[in-house]
Amino acid sequence: MSDTPADPDIVVDPALDPALGTRTYDLDRAHVFHSWSAQGSLAPFVIAGASGSEVWDYDGKRYLDFSSQLVNMNIGHTHPKVVAAIQKQAAELPMVAPAHANLARGEAASRIVAKAGSHFGKVFFTNGGADANENAIRMARLTTGKDKVLSTYRSYHGNTGAAIVATGDWRRVPNEYARGHVHFFGPFLYRSEFWASTPEEESARALHHLERVIVSEGAASIAAILLEGVPGTAGVMVPPPGYLTGVRELCDKYGILLILDEVMSGFGRTGSWFSWQHPLVNPDGIVPDLITFAKGVNSGYVPAGGVVISESISAAFDDQVFPGGLTYSGHPLAMASIVASIDAMEEEGVIENASAIGEKVLGPGLQALADAHPMIGEVRGLGVFWALDLVADRDTREPVAPSVMGALKAELLARGLLPFIADNRLHVVPPCVVTPEECLQGLEIIDEALTAIGG
Amino acid sequence: MSDTPADPDIVVDPALDPALGTRTYDLDRAHVFHSWSAQGSLAPFVIAGASGSEVWDYDGKRYLDFSSQLVNMNIGHTHPKVVAAIQKQAAELPMVAPAHANLARGEAASRIVAKAGSHFGKVFFTNGGADANENAIRMARLTTGKDKVLSTYRSYHGNTGAAIVATGDWRRVPNEYARGHVHFFGPFLYRSEFWASTPEEESARALHHLERVIVSEGAASIAAILLEGVPGTAGVMVPPPGYLTGVRELCDKYGILLILDEVMSGFGRTGSWFSWQHPLVNPDGIVPDLITFAKGVNSGYVPAGGVVISESISAAFDDQVFPGGLTYSGHPLAMASIVASIDAMEEEGVIENASAIGEKVLGPGLQALADAHPMIGEVRGLGVFWALDLVADRDTREPVAPSVMGALKAELLARGLLPFIADNRLHVVPPCVVTPEECLQGLEIIDEALTAIGG
Repeated sequence: MSDTPADPDIVVDPALDPALGTRTYDLDRAHVFHSWSAQGSLAPFVIAGASGSEVWDYDGKRYLDFSSQLVNMNIGHTHPKVVAAIQKQAAELPMVAPAHANLARGEAASRIVAKAGSHFGKVFFTNGGADANENAIRMARLTTGKDKVLSTYRSYHGNTGAAIVATGDWRRVPNEYARGHVHFFGPFLYRSEFWASTPEEESARALHHLERVIVSEGAASIAAILLEGVPGTAGVMVPPPGYLTGVRELCDKYGILLILDEVMSGFGRTGSWFSWQHPLVNPDGIVPDLITFAKGVNSGYVPAGGVVISESISAAFDDQVFPGGLTYSGHPLAMASIVASIDAMEEEGVIENASAIGEKVLGPGLQALADAHPMIGEVRGLGVFWALDLVADRDTREPVAPSVMGALKAELLARGLLPFIADNRLHVVPPCVVTPEECLQGLEIIDEALTAIGG
Repeated sequence: MSDTPADPDIVVDPALDPALGTRTYDLDRAHVFHSWSAQGSLAPFVIAGASGSEVWDYDGKRYLDFSSQLVNMNIGHTHPKVVAAIQKQAAELPMVAPAHANLARGEAASRIVAKAGSHFGKVFFTNGGADANENAIRMARLTTGKDKVLSTYRSYHGNTGAAIVATGDWRRVPNEYARGHVHFFGPFLYRSEFWASTPEEESARALHHLERVIVSEGAASIAAILLEGVPGTAGVMVPPPGYLTGVRELCDKYGILLILDEVMSGFGRTGSWFSWQHPLVNPDGIVPDLITFAKGVNSGYVPAGGVVISESISAAFDDQVFPGGLTYSGHPLAMASIVASIDAMEEEGVIENASAIGEKVLGPGLQALADAHPMIGEVRGLGVFWALDLVADRDTREPVAPSVMGALKAELLARGLLPFIADNRLHVVPPCVVTPEECLQGLEIIDEALTAIGG
């Protein structure tokens, strides 16, 4: 299924007609309502086409995609094997109802379970990360018979009813219509909530804080702890030594399920299939009860997400009806893209590339930038998952002003790099297929842009 | 974009190898977790391929798809123009982040707005119907500054946090973790909650009941009334004369927004683009404030949904940030399938076909079945959107037992018809492209199956 070459008559360069760029912009401004924005003052970047780690506009100007769009384009743009699989499945059977079996869905589920490991048995497919988290939370509540879900303030878990209230960042605040969510502070040494001075101290104190929240809320009311394997949009914060192990121990001690949200951190981003399988993230090899995914599973070529379910939680619904579902659960077109993407990642060593890029190119390269630019307060990350924490003052660690980030974005775009910017951070998150040469080019652009804004 | 023919080398019949059917079944049972089910006793129907109004299994047995899968396959299976558009977009640009403009998204939004009419300005795209309703509810709450959402007990609005609690049916009950939802009874003369005996009386009393709920809850706390244009899964209940007009008047009187959920009823199902545009549904031509859609917009070939937003609600977010969004909002692959599907529906008269099928074939044909089978208590519907309400006794209207529905399903499948069954109802919901001949064949199968179960 995955190795049919794309038909050369179908793989064409888009017509780079500037008039189409104008039409695209005008139609967008007239009729498209945008996510997380005030609509009046938007000036969207127009994308005409893309390949690998590059996108281009209708004037033919090319940009290094150091955003992976929304940190999802892990296998790179228009990968021929994934494109071919979509084309083939579209012609054969784009969609069947979730109640009916189809081959692509079973093949996708078996591959995902194999990557997650023997603790896991089944996959419940959704349309994206938000409803993956919704359904993981539902499973946790129903199997424990408890209500509360604990998650961190520095987190993002999706935009629907429960997922947005599980989210910790500002996006939760206007959306607090779900009950049963409690937030706590996760470990983050650079901006410690615990007056810690070493990673080990941050880890121990964060665990102490979490246990105090569990006890104070009442362990008997807590169904699950929901954590991003490596918190992403909140700042790419690799858990310090012992933290995940400690969380697992608290879960076991108090009868709480552990849900790891691998929507952004999974499928290659950290240089492993799941971030919790990375030795720097989880050296003791603890295992979660539920894993949620989306984005990298098929690089978002077709909307898809899901929950990988432990054997024991899955068995709890053998006789009890699972009260959740959706029309596009296990959508064949999405499933075919998952199968092709996982197979291509394996055949082409995409995970290994992401790991090597992190160790040999991006890690050292970004550290060298920090040595040269006082505006870089901290470099954090691994694989192709990095953040530069930009500060007005290295001693106080005061974040730079939003206007500085706006100026940085403009300088990066002008030099041909499409960035991912969140708060005071530049996230350096290219596709997992990015080459060393592209990384060096990107590092040079970041260097120049920081210099241009006086950073 | 929509008239590129599918490449004949890619449009192939699936290999009808019975061993693949076994593999499909086995992988599904081993690794796929199913919607709304106890997992232990499932025996999923295996689908190998599909075209138009037919699906087939790996033994080559063909079935009339009178379910349209989950009432979404409006344009029929593997429509060549939609398939070709997906193949082309996949090769060019399958996905960009929602912040960036792309041509397919603007083309899709402009077509949807044109179908909705001049009251509407923009479209916010989602992954499906549930998050469409989530975001419509969010818009209503933010623009009114009020919290509560009223919806009917006989309704289904999706499976995520707010959508499932807006839902009225049993699926809400284990999921009540969202606040601000109030339920009321909608009009349904056959099983009236209001002791009514005519459609006009049912309508007037249902409106009286709704106003009493509004006043009793406090109009100042109510952001929106959320209604399916024609309630679908709950039983295909066309609103009686005056009902939608009365709801609109109550909304205006009390400063409440009207959200019409057209996820199942939109894009041809009733024989009109939106069910609220159908003269039998809405003879006075009232207009909602927000419309949610999914399913028929692209027949589910790629997961997609959205909210069509009135000019005034859209303008309310010109300067105020809209606090909602998702990675796959306006996903180019999904958007290309929407453009091709709307264009093909227009070029091929698909809406007109659905309307004519309802008036000339399914309506009279189902009524003839009711005349012959006392088990049919009522025939309801229009277009390609019908329900047979099956009863143990025509006088008491007592629903038939679940075992009767199980037997009916088996008889229909054995005769080559894939049905949609909900509670005590057989929903007759073929694709909008169904032919008169296919309908007559389906009606004959239903006739025989009812006879076989003694109905």
